Order: sequence, then structure tokens, then C-alpha cells
Amino acid sequence: MSVTFVNLFAVQPGRDAAFLELWQRVNTYMQGQPGYLDHQLHRALSPDARYRFVNIAHWTSESTWQAAHDEGFRALTGDPAWQEFPPFPTLYEVVHENHAAGARS
Amino acid sequence: MSVTFVNLFAVQPGRDAAFLELWQRVNTYMQGQPGYLDHQLHRALSPDARYRFVNIAHWTSESTWQAAHDEGFRALTGDPAWQEFPPFPTLYEVVHENHAAGARS
Repeated sequence: MSVTFVNLFAVQPGRDAAFLELWQRVNTYMQGQPGYLDHQLHRALSPDARYRFVNIAHWTSESTWQAAHDEGFRALTGDPAWQEFPPFPTLYEVVHENHAAGARS
Repeated sequence: MSVTFVNLFAVQPGRDAAFLELWQRVNTYMQGQPGYLDHQLHRALSPDARYRFVNIAHWTSESTWQAAHDEGFRALTGDPAWQEFPPFPTLYEVVHENHAAGARS
């Protein structure tokens, strides 16, 4: 069963570029890990959102997702610059869904 | 431009059924509103997640999403039972995405 990984980030005004540079380094690495399916990084439309960025990614299973958090991942996320952007990660399963008739997937 | 609506819910242990009953009433109503594209309600795999449920929905635009929060919506969410499950809603746009080659969409 595929799983949905939701990672929330609080990013202060004016710090989008710094966050994105750090995040993309980790994201590029994770895309190369077995089990990665897809991701969408979202930015809030309103500047006062508590979580300005939300990454939503899908992995083939909880075990591939766990295995992807390896030494290479820890080396990247051990960068002290990450202390400004503490992640808030949670793994989920889908329990209810629907698509409107004719809607894009 | 379509938008992504992320709604986080803290639900205490043993209260899933009560939450889901309330949530599905609102969800069914919103599915009938113009601009609704799709949704996936997620439940955390770990019992100690801060946000046990996360709804991720797509709408055709910010304006259709706003218009959907009408009198009918307010009547449903005005149910005092909702006080146990305060929502944490935020509207997002996608700023970075990728799909693995051959992965399901």
C-alpha cells in the first residue's frame, strides 16, 4: 500500500529562497531513493499561514520511506541551516477519497 | 490555476468514528459545490501524530473555493459537535513537483 508523506514547514517572511535552496537539496536526493513515487511542494497563498510550505509526497510503502532516511539523508539534513526551518513530518494512509466527474487527476 | 486545500485535524484516541461522521457530512456537501475537483482524506499511521487526519482537496481556483464556503457550509460546520475537532485550514499553490518515471499518478 502506498503511503502519503506530509511535511509542514514554518518559514518566516523573506526566507523563501533560503528554505527552497535547502529543501531542494534534500528533495533531489530523496527522488533518487527506491520507493519514491512523486511529490508536490506547496506554498501558502496567504502570507500569514502557520505552515508556509507543505510537501506532499507518495512512496510505495512505509518501509521504503523509512529506508530512504539513510546516512545520505542525515548528512544533508544535518546542515545547521536547517535549524531555521524545523520540519514537521507525518506519514499517512488515504481513508476516503473522490474525484469529480471529468476533473483532472 | 487550481489550488490545493489542506485541512489539518487533531483527533483524540478513540474519536475517529465521531470525527468521520461529522467530516463526511461536510465533505459530501462540498463535493457538490462548483469548482470541487477531488479530495483525499488521510489518517496518520502513527497514533501519536499531532494531526491525526489531513484532508487534501483540489479546487479549480481560490474564488470557487471561497464561494463554496456558503450558508449551507456554515450551517453544517456550526454543529456544536465540531468544537471537539477544530479545523486548521490553509490554501496552497504548487511550487515544485515531480513524478518518478513509471510511477502511478
